[in-house]
Amino acid sequence: MSEISQLDPAERILMGPGPSNVPVRTLLALAAPTVGHLDPQYIQIMDETCALLRKVMRTENRLTFPISGTGMAGMETLAVNLLEPGDEAIVCINGVFGQRMQDVFQRCGATVHPVEAPWGETISAAAAARAVADHPHAKLLAIVHAETSTGAHQPLEEISSIVHQAGMLYLVDAVTSLGGQELQVDAWQIDAIYSGTQKCLSCPPGLAPVSFSERALAVMEARQSKVQSWYLDVSMLRNYYLSKTGGGGRAYHHTAPINMTYALREALRIVLEEGLEARVDRHRRMHQRLRAGLEELGLQYVPSSSLYGLNCVRVPKGVDEAAVRTQLLEQYGIEIGAGLGPFAGQAWRIGLMGHTCRQRNVDLVLTALRDTLV
Amino acid sequence: MSEISQLDPAERILMGPGPSNVPVRTLLALAAPTVGHLDPQYIQIMDETCALLRKVMRTENRLTFPISGTGMAGMETLAVNLLEPGDEAIVCINGVFGQRMQDVFQRCGATVHPVEAPWGETISAAAAARAVADHPHAKLLAIVHAETSTGAHQPLEEISSIVHQAGMLYLVDAVTSLGGQELQVDAWQIDAIYSGTQKCLSCPPGLAPVSFSERALAVMEARQSKVQSWYLDVSMLRNYYLSKTGGGGRAYHHTAPINMTYALREALRIVLEEGLEARVDRHRRMHQRLRAGLEELGLQYVPSSSLYGLNCVRVPKGVDEAAVRTQLLEQYGIEIGAGLGPFAGQAWRIGLMGHTCRQRNVDLVLTALRDTLV
Repeated sequence: MSEISQLDPAERILMGPGPSNVPVRTLLALAAPTVGHLDPQYIQIMDETCALLRKVMRTENRLTFPISGTGMAGMETLAVNLLEPGDEAIVCINGVFGQRMQDVFQRCGATVHPVEAPWGETISAAAAARAVADHPHAKLLAIVHAETSTGAHQPLEEISSIVHQAGMLYLVDAVTSLGGQELQVDAWQIDAIYSGTQKCLSCPPGLAPVSFSERALAVMEARQSKVQSWYLDVSMLRNYYLSKTGGGGRAYHHTAPINMTYALREALRIVLEEGLEARVDRHRRMHQRLRAGLEELGLQYVPSSSLYGLNCVRVPKGVDEAAVRTQLLEQYGIEIGAGLGPFAGQAWRIGLMGHTCRQRNVDLVLTALRDTLV
Repeated sequence: MSEISQLDPAERILMGPGPSNVPVRTLLALAAPTVGHLDPQYIQIMDETCALLRKVMRTENRLTFPISGTGMAGMETLAVNLLEPGDEAIVCINGVFGQRMQDVFQRCGATVHPVEAPWGETISAAAAARAVADHPHAKLLAIVHAETSTGAHQPLEEISSIVHQAGMLYLVDAVTSLGGQELQVDAWQIDAIYSGTQKCLSCPPGLAPVSFSERALAVMEARQSKVQSWYLDVSMLRNYYLSKTGGGGRAYHHTAPINMTYALREALRIVLEEGLEARVDRHRRMHQRLRAGLEELGLQYVPSSSLYGLNCVRVPKGVDEAAVRTQLLEQYGIEIGAGLGPFAGQAWRIGLMGHTCRQRNVDLVLTALRDTLV
């Protein structure tokens, strides 16, 4: 196999919409010796990982664990477990990930009532209230906290009250916000949430942290039909993740991605060593520094309320946006993201997530853009 | 977070039903710097990984790639893409994984016609032929090459002819055989196959290699209904994995587990450096050595035709099987597997897969069992 040589990926500065750069500590944890998924020491490692996840998510939810897939597997887990054929669901759509929720929910046999806002904008509490009033039989309302396709930062608290007053479940996509933006699962009464590991947690992709409230658990327990996905069926997964036996007696469901669990555990330890508030503050400060620099270069932000970790700016007229990205990658080793959907060719997405979110990266990407845009 | 300390898993000798021990080269590849999933160099790494997979699977199938989940996600991928509500499927059941295929297929709305054999036995060509004759409208027949719950080694070629003469698709579970047992996807006319990375490939768990024949592709293209899983929908995944653009222009679907791809690529390089035939021969020789030693200890094999990589033996009467496993783990660092289903408490499963499959491990587990069973 001489034609396929030793792996030697060039080191990138990952300033796209994810993955972000992974700290050496997390990479080394990833490479620790593999143990069995039913080994008592692995059960302990997984229990510790779930305990750390609860702290980072600010929740006491018992059912808080990583799904064995990437972020989209997290979205699908919420959908297949909480929806049944014939259910109605309200989905807030202001970008790609809201659209995807609509698609995923429909594949579960649900009728979706969309609440739409222009791409880059957020969903207003008034619009959510109207949708809830118009569709009183909807089982849940789903919303994207951090719309990775536009950089829009969605406020969650006011809509939460509206949803709960109507007796619905509140589902949140926090793929790009967890670990980089304020997020409080319990205080904000989020019933079900999913995230990814490769954004503000700065762990490689491969796991999707999820958490379910007791209310969500009750809804799952009252299902009439079998969950359509065996792999993502929480009624079986909970026998592994909620077991009280403390090792040895866990019900085998599937072989978890063991080394990825090591890495997530280390990534969460790093988050908590920094402290959640300090971490969010760092993201805020670096975002402000980047924003000032980008605006100085004449670049306009797309969203009216931008995430700290994802900065979506319009491509100036007459600029070949792909050529700029290629030059950044080849000359500086910097990856920034292209626009998605209606923003394809129209926007760049500049990530400042987790370990990547440092002043030297902010200053370098500004320098690189300045030189490239001349 | 002082209460959750630095990761420090004890090194185990992994002689259970998987995972197997991971070579240092593969662990180091896992820890290489993360790059973006749309980075041209990652596209190349993924293309190389798929090329290596084709060689290890002995197939020219264009659509050969790793699913972003563990082995069971591979099973589910075949099911959701090849079955539609109302379809009929024949499933061969002689252990846990045949049972699971039945469950997974039914969740896709298919009617399953089981062909059963006692646990530990294999499915006869005559039984398969009867099922095919009895259910001429079945769309496919699914069978487990290596039944991880019993160690039974299922011959695949004769049944393949029967299935194709009836115009059905031939689906194979090769989770525990790929890389340790003879397996020829093209020569044996397998239409769809899935495996796992943590068995005879000796890569950590987290990916499920799959391959689809052109016939299977045609069946997927003729679907009437949307695939019920967005995450596993091959009609979208193929836009990423089959794209001819060679970098940059791939359609974004989901963020692949990038570092796991590094590890799989290295694991496959190691397999091909050894050579497929030499590797299978090593598994055969180590199996024979282990078998001779186990039989000398008075232990009886469960299956009439045993896999090389998974040795399932009956627990002698009066022996506390869990206590033996605990003693092996604690005194020797050796993990062996318990029985599953009707074999719970009745059998041990001793793995000899991939990197674990070495004389020193065979001799040590025999010594440890001899000392423990006294």
